[in-house]
Formats: sequence, C-alpha cells, structure tokens
Amino acid sequence: MKTLIDGAQIESALQKLEVGSVEELSIRQLVSLVKLFEKECGEEFIHFEIGVPGLPASQVGIEAQKEALDGGVASVYPALEGEPALKQAASKFIRAIIGADVAPSHCIPTVGSMQGTFATLMAVSALDSKKDTILYIDPGFPVQKNQADVLGIRREAFDLYDYRAEKLGPKLEEYLSTGRIAAILYSNPNNPTWMCLTDDELRTIGEMANKYEAVVIEDLAYITMDFRKGLNPATGLPTQVSVTPYANDYVLLMSGSKIFSYAGERIAVAAFSDHLFNRKSESLRQRYGLPSFGNVFVHKLIYTLSSGVSHSAQMALARMMDQAAEGIYNYRDEVREYALRTERIREILTRHGFHIVYDKDVDEPVGNGFFFTIGYKDMTGGELLGNLLRCGVSGIVLTTTGADREGIRACSSAIKPHHYELLDQRLGMFEELVRG
Amino acid sequence: MKTLIDGAQIESALQKLEVGSVEELSIRQLVSLVKLFEKECGEEFIHFEIGVPGLPASQVGIEAQKEALDGGVASVYPALEGEPALKQAASKFIRAIIGADVAPSHCIPTVGSMQGTFATLMAVSALDSKKDTILYIDPGFPVQKNQADVLGIRREAFDLYDYRAEKLGPKLEEYLSTGRIAAILYSNPNNPTWMCLTDDELRTIGEMANKYEAVVIEDLAYITMDFRKGLNPATGLPTQVSVTPYANDYVLLMSGSKIFSYAGERIAVAAFSDHLFNRKSESLRQRYGLPSFGNVFVHKLIYTLSSGVSHSAQMALARMMDQAAEGIYNYRDEVREYALRTERIREILTRHGFHIVYDKDVDEPVGNGFFFTIGYKDMTGGELLGNLLRCGVSGIVLTTTGADREGIRACSSAIKPHHYELLDQRLGMFEELVRG
Repeated sequence: MKTLIDGAQIESALQKLEVGSVEELSIRQLVSLVKLFEKECGEEFIHFEIGVPGLPASQVGIEAQKEALDGGVASVYPALEGEPALKQAASKFIRAIIGADVAPSHCIPTVGSMQGTFATLMAVSALDSKKDTILYIDPGFPVQKNQADVLGIRREAFDLYDYRAEKLGPKLEEYLSTGRIAAILYSNPNNPTWMCLTDDELRTIGEMANKYEAVVIEDLAYITMDFRKGLNPATGLPTQVSVTPYANDYVLLMSGSKIFSYAGERIAVAAFSDHLFNRKSESLRQRYGLPSFGNVFVHKLIYTLSSGVSHSAQMALARMMDQAAEGIYNYRDEVREYALRTERIREILTRHGFHIVYDKDVDEPVGNGFFFTIGYKDMTGGELLGNLLRCGVSGIVLTTTGADREGIRACSSAIKPHHYELLDQRLGMFEELVRG
Repeated sequence: MKTLIDGAQIESALQKLEVGSVEELSIRQLVSLVKLFEKECGEEFIHFEIGVPGLPASQVGIEAQKEALDGGVASVYPALEGEPALKQAASKFIRAIIGADVAPSHCIPTVGSMQGTFATLMAVSALDSKKDTILYIDPGFPVQKNQADVLGIRREAFDLYDYRAEKLGPKLEEYLSTGRIAAILYSNPNNPTWMCLTDDELRTIGEMANKYEAVVIEDLAYITMDFRKGLNPATGLPTQVSVTPYANDYVLLMSGSKIFSYAGERIAVAAFSDHLFNRKSESLRQRYGLPSFGNVFVHKLIYTLSSGVSHSAQMALARMMDQAAEGIYNYRDEVREYALRTERIREILTRHGFHIVYDKDVDEPVGNGFFFTIGYKDMTGGELLGNLLRCGVSGIVLTTTGADREGIRACSSAIKPHHYELLDQRLGMFEELVRG
C-alpha cells in the first residue's frame, strides 16, 4: 500500500547518519531525519519525537533579557558561580515551590540542565574512587546516559514501573549494596512516561542514598507539571515533592526550557545541598586538583566547560524564577496547555487501537502532561516507529529510554489545532498499513 | 612600610581558596581574590589580571540579539550544528578576513571558544589511539591546559620565544616524531605575550602537522588585532594569517568575546577543514559510537555538553560576522583602543624600572595590543605579583601560562582614563616597598 515514506527512504537516511536502525537514533538525529522526510514527501509530519516547547517563550523572561542587553551585560563575563540575581532567585524559587532551603551560594547557573548533568556526572564520579557507577531510574532521558558514555562512566539502570512504593527500597539496595553507586539519577515528573515519584518513594531514595553515601541527582525539568496536583493552600503557589528533606547529598537540576518555554537560550540552575557542596575528598583533589565538591564544580568544571553561562539569559531566568516565587507570574497556567493537548491526542490514539504503555502511577492512572507513552498490540517499539514514520508520524523508541516495555515516547508540545484531524487520518493510514 | 594589603591578608585569602601560593591561582580565582582585597582596603585595584572586554558590547550584536528575542527564538532549541544564519556568516567572515574556504556546514557554534576547545580536545584525543598528547605552543591561555587536565589528556609544551622562524620546524618535529601528538594548539595573536606567528611559521606548523597526521587547533580569539598590520588593499578589510592554506586537519576557534566585546553571551564558532570534518576512524567509533569527526563533534559532544548554544546569541554573532565581512561594521576601529592604552601603560611601567618580558616578535619589537608581559629586575613572577598585589596592582604569573621567562601577564582592557595616574602612584609605592 502507498504510504508517505517507503522502507528504502528510511534505509538510505539511516545510512547517511551512520546508524543501523531506528532504535539507535538519538532524538536530534530523528529530528533531522524527519525534516528530510518532510522534504522528500512534501507533507507535514506529526512531530511526537522532540520535547521542544510548543508555546512562546515567557514574555517575563524576554523583557528581562532585553533590558539586561541594553544595560550592557553582553560585554561582561558572567561570574563562574553565577550572577547574584539568579542565585538569589533560584534559592527563593526552591523555598517557595519545594519548601527547601538551598543557599544562593549553592545555586549555580548552567548552560541548560544538559551542562548541569554533564558537570555533575564529572564531579560525582570522582568523589570516591570506589564508587564508579551511576544508577539511572528508568525509563529516562536517553542523552543523560549518552553523557555517561561520552565521559566513560559506568552505569546501571532498572525500570521503575515494576518497583513502585514499597518495592523501590529493596530494588535500590540491590544496586547500592555493591558499594559502586556514586549517584542515583531520575527525573520527576518522569521523562518519558510522566509517572511521578511520591513523597514516600523520595524518602526511600533519600534514605538509601544516605545509607550508602550516594549522591541524588534529581532532574526537575518538569517541576510542578503534574497537573493532577492543586496549589499549596498556604501560599497559593504550585508545589513539587522532592528528595530535599531526605537526602544529605543532592543536586536539583532546574531548567528554564520547559516550565518557562526558554529552551532556545540554554539556561538552567544546578542547586546543591549544603552537605554536598562542602563535601571534600582526597579522590576529588587527585582528579581535579581541589578537594571540595562545590569548588570543583564551579572553578574546575563550569570554568573549563564554558566559562560560565550567557549573562543575559541568567537575568531572564532570574526574573522568571523570582516572579514565579512571588506568585506574580503564573507560569503553570501557560504550560497547562500541554495536558489539554495530551488528553485530546490520547482519545484519538485509543480510538485507533493504541494503548498507553506506562499507564499506572502507583495505584492511579498516569496523568496528562508533556510526554506520554504509546504502544500498539504486541509490536516492538522499533516496528511501531518504522510503521508510524511511513505514515508521517514520528516518536522515540521507548527502549532507547531504558524501558523494559515496548512502545514509543510521544510529546504533545508540537501539536497545533489542525494536527488532531491530521493525526486521525495518519493513524487511519497506519491501520491500513499494518492490516497488510 | 605601609602597603594597601599586607602579607597576612594574602595568606588568609589563599587558604580560603585552597591554594598554596599566588603562582597556583587561576585567573578567575585571582579575580575574586582581588575583589576581596578591594573590600578589605577600601581602595580600587589596577586590574591587569583579567582579559575582559573593556569596551561596550557591539551595538550591532545587541540589536540583532534583541530582534531575535522579539522574533521568538528563546523557545526554540538551537540546532546542534548551529543556526544557518551563523554558519553562513562564519564561513563568509573566514573567506573575507583569512581568505580561506570553510563550508558553512563545517562552522559549528560553541558556548564560547572555551566549549569549542573542550569539545575539540575530547574529539582529537580519540582520533587515533596511539596519539594521546596535545602539544601546546607556549606561553598560552592557562585554562586550555586545565581543560586537558580535567579530561585526563596528556600534554606537552614548549616556549615559542627561543624557537622562532627557522628554529620552529626542528622543535616541533622533536615532539611530533614521538608519534604521540594528536594536536598542536596555539593562539595567534598570542595570549599572553602578543607575539604573532608569521605566515612562514604557520606554513611550518601546517607541514609538520601533515607529516605526522596531527590536528592544528588555531585559537583566533584576537583575530586581526595585530595593529601593526594594515588593511587588505584589495578588500579594504582587516587580514589575518592562518594555518588554513597549509594544514590538512585544522580547527579555527573564533570567539565573539574580544573582537566584538561579546564575552558575556558566551558565543563563538569552531570552524573545521573539510578533511578533518569528514575524517573517520575506528578509534573514534569505539570511543564515541560514531566514526566521523564532524558527526562526533556535533551529535555526541555539542549534544551532551549543552545541547547547542544560546539561540539569540547565535543571531547576534551572525550579524556581527556578516557585517564585518561586508565591511559595513568596522569592529577593528573599536578594539584599536586597547593598543592605545597599552602604549601609555608601557610608558609608565618603563619609567618605574619595569621591562617587557616577551619583547621581540622574531626581529621586530612586539606590538601593542590587548596583553603584554612585564618583569622587574630579576624578580620571579610570584614575587613580583605578591609585591604588586600589596600595592593594589594585579596580574597573572607568567609561569602559569607555560612561560620559561619570569614576569606577569597584564591586560590593558580594564584601564580607564583615571587609572594612568593611579598606576603611577602605585608603582611609586611598589618601588619604595622593594627598596625595603
């Protein structure tokens, strides 16, 4: 049957990118492959593959950034430890939303949370020479594993789905008791499944990390985007559960990319617990020439990676975080749009015989948000993506996220009003294709 | 005798930074130490230590960046390989100023040349498993060596001063003939001495690199800032000699920080020769999962380091490079100011018994520019800096730049009109101090 793209086109594109199959494609490679397919077939694709903001950037940020440029920041090297305004605002934001105390001096701007993770992996893997492994709670963002690979750091992982609630502790201990785990990394809400760790589970993670002296790396890219949760009645602000009350050594990765739709400017903050920031080790000194974690992070890693972070973007994030913490800027009302899109898309998918792969969040149905996971009958993720691509729909094979379950990750962010009908047609084409 | 700062204050500040002596301070650590001293003594220092732009950022760039923000780029992830406008502009700028052809597809934006160097070191050190060493032509920018250390890459270096012209080839071959040199790194004009490699010397470097299959990493942070040179009569544009006509495998690091005074926004371009960008190796594939250099640089390194570069800053650099290449924007007239300041400062220094350490550029006197090197009698660099700090003058110990000769690096960029008289007084205090 006639599809938008045929198998030979897929093969030839993979060869050009030097990869063997669609399962091996990185997200960015998929993006460029889909761009090529759109050119080749002359038709728009449904872009489920990339988690780009599908909303305009925060106007609060844009105004602050332009003012900063007019004020002369473009000629001034940013301080390596970050500009005071952003350090203050990040600390205030964490206090307001998470209810935790992280000193401004321990809030370090990074070039997106990508740089935050890269530098954190470099630092934690040198804290203790016996601890050489990062434990990923999967499914997860594939690039965070690529970062470990690029750095030559050993990694382990398990799929969270079958180890929720009281099953989580024993599963974590299985890895931690080897004595090799330097850090535990996860995102909450979870990219790609949108499962959300509970306060009880976060306590478990914190306690286990403390018992085995591991660092907790908590990626809060989608902070407060579990839209099932209401506002804090005391503050009127959104809330986020976190490992902060439980873990001694933690890093919070807070990106401006999703909650403020500021992905283009590559701006985030890595916030460290007091205990971790001041932690010293002989192994750190041998590897990087300084004994304390915070000094290594700032003066050895941020320095050599990029000599700091865009000065004007720091001023943008500073104002967004500050106004969000004050309750003046209701960023959450803007990003709630993603949940509405996901709800509509899920209805269309279900009608065409698709199912949600990661459907349960402990004992509730998983919420609607930025990402969701879809499967079709007993198709593998690779087969499913191959077939969907032929019909002008893209996505990410779930196994690339460390999932044990088969399917693809989809994101609602690129969906515009005219796409719902188009998706319906494309999935009709898909059903015809797979019927043979 | 009474100085602004005493020895005990210096000792206590060093302890806080966890370093043993002023010789071990990084530039950024010195900056924060001097900030502290200014607070403690309540007097302004003469800031010779950091090469920050001392001019306002290019208005051409600021306008372009603000327009880009208004146009919506802040929400859009930058392409990993860079935005087309900047890739085109960088290629055009290289053609106009250097006279070389580098395809837009091989011009990759980076978060400052700091990230460009970091990613380049990661890639070149994996090109050939037998080549594990970077050869630095010294004196040089200390952080580029810290980068190799942080990455665990072996390095060698020699001081250029005694190996100019026909002595350069045999000296390079001494290192290259070991078969271990993956890349040769230098800056031109040279940070910190302002010596400028000649076309003949660059040919030697290129030919030697080709003979031993090494990559040339040419840092052009101060491109066209050898103010002894006039404009190209054919184009009316500034010119720069480069290794491009001679080397097969080269990377040009072109920063917006100094020539456009755009340091705050962390924006640069790494431009690769066709031969290097397309070079494939089994060693690269084993280390990073992809065989070709260009794909590794973009899809493995830029991706995992920061997922690209500030979108709005790319648009700023695009317009600055494009207008500079067209001859519409005479950036060089703006930065010529540094040479005028250096000339005045050198006169004051000489009057107080100081000398220029790296005084010769092959057979001419070294030109006036952004950096210069100063010595005092037979004082070591550490002694000299210790004494100058006590008198409210800072700088960088030359040995930290790999120099064989004793003295300090100074930069004219932070000097304002009222500083000339202040410098005169402070050097008077210095002379009194050292007379005892």
